[in-house]
Amino acid sequence: MRQAARTLTVETRGAGLTEITRAVSAWTAEQGMTTGVLTLFCRHTSASLLIQENADPDVARDLEDYFAGLAPESSAYRHQDEGPDDMPAHLRAALTQVQLSIPLIGGRLALGTWQGVYLFEHRREGSTREVALHLIGD
Amino acid sequence: MRQAARTLTVETRGAGLTEITRAVSAWTAEQGMTTGVLTLFCRHTSASLLIQENADPDVARDLEDYFAGLAPESSAYRHQDEGPDDMPAHLRAALTQVQLSIPLIGGRLALGTWQGVYLFEHRREGSTREVALHLIGD
Amino acid sequence: MRQAARTLTVETRGAGLTEITRAVSAWTAEQGMTTGVLTLFCRHTSASLLIQENADPDVARDLEDYFAGLAPESSAYRHQDEGPDDMPAHLRAALTQVQLSIPLIGGRLALGTWQGVYLFEHRREGSTREVALHLIGD
Repeated sequence: MRQAARTLTVETRGAGLTEITRAVSAWTAEQGMTTGVLTLFCRHTSASLLIQENADPDVARDLEDYFAGLAPESSAYRHQDEGPDDMPAHLRAALTQVQLSIPLIGGRLALGTWQGVYLFEHRREGSTREVALHLIGD
Repeated sequence: MRQAARTLTVETRGAGLTEITRAVSAWTAEQGMTTGVLTLFCRHTSASLLIQENADPDVARDLEDYFAGLAPESSAYRHQDEGPDDMPAHLRAALTQVQLSIPLIGGRLALGTWQGVYLFEHRREGSTREVALHLIGD
Repeated sequence: MRQAARTLTVETRGAGLTEITRAVSAWTAEQGMTTGVLTLFCRHTSASLLIQENADPDVARDLEDYFAGLAPESSAYRHQDEGPDDMPAHLRAALTQVQLSIPLIGGRLALGTWQGVYLFEHRREGSTREVALHLIGD
């Protein structure tokens, strides 16, 4: 049994989903393990992780609109110091996931046919985001 | 330290919660480990995993109604190709979890007294769903 | 490779966020590992776990208000046996997380600068809550 760890850097260009499936799968494959668990951890409170359909790009746009409506900028929040888009960003992160663990079975991540892994940026402006990757197995 | 992996198949009969606690616990027990971590991973984008109370069946029905209302079919979604219940299904999956990790301590999963593990089907029609199980420990 | 497990007890004083970062980090440090994964598992269905900003206390208050509004006590729920605040508590737990896994890299949890780990109590009355901790690594 052994472990591998790495920090994946993701550049975002504004609120929305950025697919990271390829980078995550490639790093995992490089470790040469057959069975294990990959843990992804988003090191931010205004961005999050999501597994969603990667076939029809409309799904990503509907997701973005939905969460923008569910935790809108227009609500009256106490926390305003970092701009009107910061508190909604925290809420959208709380409603989704900061962490995902994906089994590695038969040398492949156990993602379903239509599942892609996404970083979900919740701030208006793009930013440099870090996702910690950890793999354990053999 | 060792690992075990398996794909659990769950037949659903339409939108709603299907308890899988027994199947998951039984498979875990068969591996004969005392300490470890079990990871469950739902290989779909229109079904998800949930840990909830398994005492009063009304809780499951309230949960189903709640998520049906929070991400309704009646909203205007771009993504319509797979029917009017598909995009709401993606949203309900995004609001819950695609993955759960449960510690194994003293030979038992660390579930609380009232906690049951459920597969949450979000499509109207039932389907055959796969949950990847991975256990590491000794 | 080795493992460590413990149950963390958290006393809550009513609905809201209780930060547990220090207790969790201290226990992890005591295990003396450099690389690994920490899994936290909330053993309840009316409390949950959340990673959020721990700089401005207004963020926690906004989060509490937001989830109180998103799953309000005033809705008509079937499940009433345990009081009007119980079903909303289950819903708020379903919308957040019952489990978190955090990589341990270079002897430290991979939490971002502003990330704190919280137990989110969803019942009106305070209670004694249990969070199972499991660490694997070396």
